[in-house]
Amino acid sequence: MNVIESASNEKIKNAVRLCSSSKARKEKNEFFLEGLRLCRDAALSGVSIRTFFYTRSALEKHGADVAFISERAESSFLISTAAEQKIADTQTPHGFFCVCAFLEEKGEELLLSGGKFIALENVQDPGNLGAVSRTAEALGITALIAENGCDIYNVKAQRAAMGSLLRLPVIRTDNLSLLLQRCKENGFKVYSTTPDRRAESITSVDMSGNVVAVIGNEGHGVSEKTASVCKKITIPMNGRAESLNASAAAALTMWEIVRSGV
Amino acid sequence: MNVIESASNEKIKNAVRLCSSSKARKEKNEFFLEGLRLCRDAALSGVSIRTFFYTRSALEKHGADVAFISERAESSFLISTAAEQKIADTQTPHGFFCVCAFLEEKGEELLLSGGKFIALENVQDPGNLGAVSRTAEALGITALIAENGCDIYNVKAQRAAMGSLLRLPVIRTDNLSLLLQRCKENGFKVYSTTPDRRAESITSVDMSGNVVAVIGNEGHGVSEKTASVCKKITIPMNGRAESLNASAAAALTMWEIVRSGV
Repeated sequence: MNVIESASNEKIKNAVRLCSSSKARKEKNEFFLEGLRLCRDAALSGVSIRTFFYTRSALEKHGADVAFISERAESSFLISTAAEQKIADTQTPHGFFCVCAFLEEKGEELLLSGGKFIALENVQDPGNLGAVSRTAEALGITALIAENGCDIYNVKAQRAAMGSLLRLPVIRTDNLSLLLQRCKENGFKVYSTTPDRRAESITSVDMSGNVVAVIGNEGHGVSEKTASVCKKITIPMNGRAESLNASAAAALTMWEIVRSGV
Repeated sequence: MNVIESASNEKIKNAVRLCSSSKARKEKNEFFLEGLRLCRDAALSGVSIRTFFYTRSALEKHGADVAFISERAESSFLISTAAEQKIADTQTPHGFFCVCAFLEEKGEELLLSGGKFIALENVQDPGNLGAVSRTAEALGITALIAENGCDIYNVKAQRAAMGSLLRLPVIRTDNLSLLLQRCKENGFKVYSTTPDRRAESITSVDMSGNVVAVIGNEGHGVSEKTASVCKKITIPMNGRAESLNASAAAALTMWEIVRSGV
């Protein structure tokens, strides 16, 4: 059994950096997960777990889970309470922490093999990012397209996603408008969502066949560059609220996409 | 101009208590709001503002808003930076704070006059509470029914609601099953949502006419007592996620209710 006592151990420091810094994650191609459920989901989903940290208390209460995750991790460490306090992002940690390799990138092949896709452009709030991916998985969306402004490895996004960001295929792109252009050339219907009531209602556009719908930034919506490739669609609103929040808009859009079937 | 310099002023202390304690709110029938937008929404919506606090910086940058809210408030105070630091719930406050009287209670009359209602039972996460009310307002839901386990005056719920909890009629009840029973007796369709896939799909039940749908607690769903009065409905899920989160489930349910029209 490997043991880490010191809170200033290099592996602990690395985990803390991965937890707090998007830059550190990109440099190392690694991300951080916390919690029994997320660490187990990572192991179940075949995510490459570089390092698994657990506490004595976790071992005593959830021995079978510790064993299960340890078997699938490249290395595992029993850590002290001091190290746990250093590494934990939540106020009441339960003694399970992983450092994982970035997920396998799904390329254009997956996209061009067809299906129902939701694309996120510059969605900033990690809670929204997680919520959208959870809904996407539940509704059976084929894959998430994440423009690089969306940090899917943010620890809060992973937490809100309840494991769905570890299971749902994610296609990353730094050029969303080009990707959407390619989709159009391949017969996809490509939509961007907007609160502008002059756009066509999601209830009247054709959602059959291969579809991509883009959800934009919480404050600024879908960029002009991206929207110029898309047909604009909107969710009809009867009330006085200025707009739906990004995750509610995404939920209703995905619902309409999936509902219309193949 | 009334000025409060001291962070230990009684009015400041009262605001801090209202911000942090549900018990304090219930004792005083008052709640706390922070931010230019929410304080202005309160004034615009005719909420009874007992005390309005603003900083010198708020006065300099947003003089017209300070004047607008002051006119509608029973009393207004220019507060010091020290007092602002004491009172603020956010990390970068913008100098607008209100103590408001609890909103006018909407009674059964509103309910029995008919419409499309969403009922929340023991929804614990203030973010969900706020998000559901924002979506409800945007989609044109008649009113929110909030069982007493839902703290609509929580400062985080009010923030997530973006003002919708100040505008949307709210019917409070400490006996939801009895209220739903009365609805049924008056010809309402009364549904409770569940992730149980054996329940009938929201796409196939009759949502026309007067409808109430109940969203339950995030972990435990709708209570048995409440569900026993309702027909159970579910959102068909194709994916692997165990369930949708409460605000996504509520969004899709409200969408189907509203969509089917009168």
